[in-house]
Amino acid sequence: MKAFEFLENKSQTLGKTMVLDKGLGLNEVDDLIATAGDYMTFAKFGWGTAATMDRELIKAKTAKYDAAGIIPYPGGTLLEVSVAAGKYDAFLDEAKDLGFKGIEVSDGSTTVDSRTRGELIVKAKQAGFYVISEVGKKNPELDHDLTPAERVALMNEDLKNGSNYVIIEAREAGKNIGIYDANGNIVADELDALTPDGIDHIIFEAPLKGQQTALILKYGPQVNLGNIAHDEVTSVATLRRGLRADTVGKV
Amino acid sequence: MKAFEFLENKSQTLGKTMVLDKGLGLNEVDDLIATAGDYMTFAKFGWGTAATMDRELIKAKTAKYDAAGIIPYPGGTLLEVSVAAGKYDAFLDEAKDLGFKGIEVSDGSTTVDSRTRGELIVKAKQAGFYVISEVGKKNPELDHDLTPAERVALMNEDLKNGSNYVIIEAREAGKNIGIYDANGNIVADELDALTPDGIDHIIFEAPLKGQQTALILKYGPQVNLGNIAHDEVTSVATLRRGLRADTVGKV
Amino acid sequence: MKAFEFLENKSQTLGKTMVLDKGLGLNEVDDLIATAGDYMTFAKFGWGTAATMDRELIKAKTAKYDAAGIIPYPGGTLLEVSVAAGKYDAFLDEAKDLGFKGIEVSDGSTTVDSRTRGELIVKAKQAGFYVISEVGKKNPELDHDLTPAERVALMNEDLKNGSNYVIIEAREAGKNIGIYDANGNIVADELDALTPDGIDHIIFEAPLKGQQTALILKYGPQVNLGNIAHDEVTSVATLRRGLRADTVGKV
Repeated sequence: MKAFEFLENKSQTLGKTMVLDKGLGLNEVDDLIATAGDYMTFAKFGWGTAATMDRELIKAKTAKYDAAGIIPYPGGTLLEVSVAAGKYDAFLDEAKDLGFKGIEVSDGSTTVDSRTRGELIVKAKQAGFYVISEVGKKNPELDHDLTPAERVALMNEDLKNGSNYVIIEAREAGKNIGIYDANGNIVADELDALTPDGIDHIIFEAPLKGQQTALILKYGPQVNLGNIAHDEVTSVATLRRGLRADTVGKV
Repeated sequence: MKAFEFLENKSQTLGKTMVLDKGLGLNEVDDLIATAGDYMTFAKFGWGTAATMDRELIKAKTAKYDAAGIIPYPGGTLLEVSVAAGKYDAFLDEAKDLGFKGIEVSDGSTTVDSRTRGELIVKAKQAGFYVISEVGKKNPELDHDLTPAERVALMNEDLKNGSNYVIIEAREAGKNIGIYDANGNIVADELDALTPDGIDHIIFEAPLKGQQTALILKYGPQVNLGNIAHDEVTSVATLRRGLRADTVGKV
Repeated sequence: MKAFEFLENKSQTLGKTMVLDKGLGLNEVDDLIATAGDYMTFAKFGWGTAATMDRELIKAKTAKYDAAGIIPYPGGTLLEVSVAAGKYDAFLDEAKDLGFKGIEVSDGSTTVDSRTRGELIVKAKQAGFYVISEVGKKNPELDHDLTPAERVALMNEDLKNGSNYVIIEAREAGKNIGIYDANGNIVADELDALTPDGIDHIIFEAPLKGQQTALILKYGPQVNLGNIAHDEVTSVATLRRGLRADTVGKV
């Protein structure tokens, strides 16, 4: 039973939250799950961080997340490096063996043609993974070259190929990329052009509080948010529920 | 016994420190108390974060702080939401049952008339809580409408009604609010106008190192500081004691 | 055995990494060593933080680092304050008793003449410590007065006196100091002038990701980096190995 339960709005559906785990240890994972596990949907082991640690440690972490009903998955950069090395099968085998339940398919750091991208998604689905695919480039200049129409086409193609969710790239910093300008503010036209089919299957990377607030105020508490720092998950839960000044009385 | 004790200045009285706990887990609370508990006076469970967690977890946290001589209290936003819902009695009962020892009375996100504000303070005192009241608005535009004279009048009224301390609002970010400009620097006139009766009963929210340094250099190590991030409590202790470059040889 | 080992480049030598511990508790130290201990060379107990904690806690921390093959040492500011108080012998005794294996000799906050600086280094070496000396001033205005030639002369003098490594100061924030401009970007001329004898014995303080990336791209993964935040050690390891977008395919 939650504290101060008399304040709860039980009927409210909250959106999915993808949390950025950029190298947490087991004590930290225990704390994270105990304090905020109820508000987490995905735990992304950011970029290639999973490859720097012992296999037994990674297994212990994925087991903890899985037991709490949270889907652990390695960052897209690790998939990209593996694909570029011609080792996608080994990547999927290792991910499965390590206890990951999801796979992120992206081309943020490398170039992957459209047919290959589709095959990567299909293969991950066939291997039994939950698939999240990401649209966007890590390099801001390349990212700006993508038109909203191209992003929408990519998203629809990914979903058709079996992606469970598509993520709009914003990196850890959340500035000058995707739907955000150099100060991290939302570019409204960019955002509106991106969502002609609604937001149900989109996860917006939104590492900054202003971004989280703006998206919640625009779409409601059910908007899906990603790249949430592990120590901001509780804050995001309060924003969704109108328990922080920025959204009090507005959600 | 502290390490490097030969450097200590025993005669020096340090000010109160209010730490922002925005969702720590039990391992983190253990670490915080073990490393810096001696330098903490209050642990504020920021805004509505306490309402997102299980009651048993909140009880375990308040018990740990209390056992270490630190006063735990829920953020003012939670009180405001409860008052707006007409549930102040339930709020006080639940806070007591969860082991909180203090209450923050504020109107940062809502509008509370002067008489009601006084009643909230009196009622919390009668219920046996330590009372901290906050002066300031979370919305910078509304906050700027408050004149220094109005802030001083509010502070004196709160203290007369029984507040143990009054806090000057600065939020988690510490910019463009209260005594700070858009870059987080102190506006000297604003600060001086605020402290005609001294600083003994004032806690300055000062989340940024530059703010902590400036206030310590102006008022001495005995100045009371608040909204200190949990991983900056040790740093603040070194600033107060002249053990960080910014204050070496100056306190 | 590391996860995703099929991606490893075994022949690659990684540079030294000095991590800033600004007050971690034992649970956090356990997590840090378990996740990233393999990538850490030094653990610096930042500035005077070691003097704010109980001796037994400091001993427990240094023992953990030492057991993991990581060299713990107190920040240079603590040495400076001790020297200024005429208590250098007591400082070395206490550091040894607390389990520190290294000593940082600096004059970032105080003025130490050249002969004394040399004596401090020699004495620490004779006492059996690993010695790291730091070149630079904490105050940006004083720091800017140092010419590259003066820095090089200081570095060479320190190495001659027995320093194992010299550190280029950048503080915790990494801006407007040493080789960095007000935005934290590297000033190329300043850097080049500083390294006529190579970089083997230099540790560059590089708290910001852009600085870490730029130094790795310029000098390769073997560049020595310092003042790495404890929750960024894994990220730095991925940058060195080409497992984060910023360096994928470039190292």
